[in-house]
Amino acid sequence: MISKSIAERMDKGSWIRKMFEEGGRLKALYGAENVFDFSLGNPDLEPPVEVLNAIRELAADPTPGLHGYMSNAGYLSTRQAVAGLVSRRSGLDVPASAVCMTVGAGGALNVALKAILDPGDEVIILAPYFFEYTSYTGNHNGVPVIVSCDRETLLPDFDAIRRAITPRTKALILNSPNNPSGVIYPAESLIQLDALLKEAPRTIYVLSDEPYNELVFDNQAVPDTMAHISNCLICTSWSKSLSLAGDRIGYLAVSPRCEDFDRLIDAVPFCNRTLGFVNAPAFFQRVVEKAIHARVDIKKYEERRDLLLRVLRDAGFEVNCPAGGIYLFPRSPIEDDVAFAQACAKHNVTLVPGTGFGFPGYVRLCFATSRETILGSARAFRIIGREFGLN
Amino acid sequence: MISKSIAERMDKGSWIRKMFEEGGRLKALYGAENVFDFSLGNPDLEPPVEVLNAIRELAADPTPGLHGYMSNAGYLSTRQAVAGLVSRRSGLDVPASAVCMTVGAGGALNVALKAILDPGDEVIILAPYFFEYTSYTGNHNGVPVIVSCDRETLLPDFDAIRRAITPRTKALILNSPNNPSGVIYPAESLIQLDALLKEAPRTIYVLSDEPYNELVFDNQAVPDTMAHISNCLICTSWSKSLSLAGDRIGYLAVSPRCEDFDRLIDAVPFCNRTLGFVNAPAFFQRVVEKAIHARVDIKKYEERRDLLLRVLRDAGFEVNCPAGGIYLFPRSPIEDDVAFAQACAKHNVTLVPGTGFGFPGYVRLCFATSRETILGSARAFRIIGREFGLN
Repeated sequence: MISKSIAERMDKGSWIRKMFEEGGRLKALYGAENVFDFSLGNPDLEPPVEVLNAIRELAADPTPGLHGYMSNAGYLSTRQAVAGLVSRRSGLDVPASAVCMTVGAGGALNVALKAILDPGDEVIILAPYFFEYTSYTGNHNGVPVIVSCDRETLLPDFDAIRRAITPRTKALILNSPNNPSGVIYPAESLIQLDALLKEAPRTIYVLSDEPYNELVFDNQAVPDTMAHISNCLICTSWSKSLSLAGDRIGYLAVSPRCEDFDRLIDAVPFCNRTLGFVNAPAFFQRVVEKAIHARVDIKKYEERRDLLLRVLRDAGFEVNCPAGGIYLFPRSPIEDDVAFAQACAKHNVTLVPGTGFGFPGYVRLCFATSRETILGSARAFRIIGREFGLN
Repeated sequence: MISKSIAERMDKGSWIRKMFEEGGRLKALYGAENVFDFSLGNPDLEPPVEVLNAIRELAADPTPGLHGYMSNAGYLSTRQAVAGLVSRRSGLDVPASAVCMTVGAGGALNVALKAILDPGDEVIILAPYFFEYTSYTGNHNGVPVIVSCDRETLLPDFDAIRRAITPRTKALILNSPNNPSGVIYPAESLIQLDALLKEAPRTIYVLSDEPYNELVFDNQAVPDTMAHISNCLICTSWSKSLSLAGDRIGYLAVSPRCEDFDRLIDAVPFCNRTLGFVNAPAFFQRVVEKAIHARVDIKKYEERRDLLLRVLRDAGFEVNCPAGGIYLFPRSPIEDDVAFAQACAKHNVTLVPGTGFGFPGYVRLCFATSRETILGSARAFRIIGREFGLN
């Protein structure tokens, strides 16, 4: 018999996966070209040419020992390259010893939570949020405490955060640019958050999941989390910025201003090992080291964002222009976003209800999909919009 | 502040890492050529030519989408190839749906334990054992129950296992060929174990960690675990057989005879996702699929095994010839194996006390090291042997 808690959680499922599977079912029924699938956040741009070149160069490298174990924290040269990047962004002097290469951001977040949580410790998660954060917190016997952002601005609601803090609060997970909302938290929000957390009865670590911080549009800047928040652990990946989601490569960087810094930087590779990750994939550590200044061509994402934005607005939807990421997050025309997502599926359009991100009343659409899919969906969205009295 | 349990566990540390670090310290003091480091089990052969060719071919493959997310269980074609392999070995009809690609055997074991354990469930671990099994069990709130193998034969002690089984026993971790002992469990042991487990008050899953099953010597065969044990989950990797330890690629295969098979094969990719592994590294899934029939040149390991065996026996040590793996596991000449390992370090020889594997009175030496290191150690071992009255 499988674990009771896993059986329960599987029954609840993930809305992203549910809608993705619904898309698959519809494609099998009606043909892929007649289904408009905006469910899964799978970056569809190819990795940048610097990455592809690095893969080819490394594949031809005859140096022995390149596929064996290394330190659980990763190759020193890769960690030095990442430390340089994080130092430049934050303006702090982040040593290589503060960096641990990880199996994507999922690996980094689990390692961070394992390193800091005692059973029953609370982790504040700002909604809307990536659904998996609650699983990650539960994996290490933490208790997720969901705090909604402002319903209009989708920015952190500091009063609500203050009310949620207890003597058991140990961490807060931050995700800016945000999946699903596309909002970038401005510097003043980060400064205000840092000040608020410093009033807490004990240290609260901020785990900054920032895989979209290179996917920002209209030349906007992303204020650096580590620059503004003292007890910051960056837990992120190149999944989106280098389109390497499947290859599972990311990192965890501990701010030199973190309380208990020395023990933290020992605990992180220890947890990387003992959670069974052992180390980040060797080959792709070397790939990102070589291509550390590359990023995907965001112009292409920006074009599609604009295209899908027009499609939705033309159909009468109320939707903000996202500053970063690969998602639109329009309001559901009816309060019940799950019912609305199901209504869309009847028109062969799959999107994810905001409920799946702890934020009912909205829906998420991933625009990292083909122009054909976006353009092809226009007719369906007009019909859906009419059905819900939007046009 | 870091987690209390992590702080405690870090203080205890791992004997393998401790001795590996001691080796590093000695090398810095006396020069690498004057230190004989047998501590870490890092396969030192290069991956077979089929693997290196596959890496080059895949690096040049212009097909789009090869670096994105796929199903959490892995690529279907890779899972089919693994299912074929497992079916041939076991004589069972193992479908691709029963296979999940994982981040090495460490990933597979954590996924399996997460999928089956409820808090307080007991996991029997046969000593000597790979130290990390206790961490993996604890990660998912399981309780490790250590059961020593026979002190002479190093084979499972069935009376002891029977005594250890309680109504809370949920799993048993099996590792054959065994790290550190090099013993291959014969078919009759597996059959006897299967019969014994079937007497238990509830289903006990056997997690078979078998990364050394292609590293066997003298043309010996490794009896297939899944062929002989009904409730078997293979949790293994290509770390040793293809020398890809750093690239973190392995798999979990659920026997079609497993109790609750249908829910298990759903729970496994679910746990792969929710533990933060998400999926096994994409590129190396394709590498192992292409090179699935390859293995490293075990003749080279066999030569070194024989060389180190001669060095130890010439110095008067009592040591069995290992049937598989990359380790010798001689008896410590004194009861206190930790004191003996420390005495060896004074002669610039690093090895791991059996205590680190839950089996005091023995020590482990990894022979996946250079001929120079092995030959160079002969003088030191003679001196150590003399010090302990062995020659």
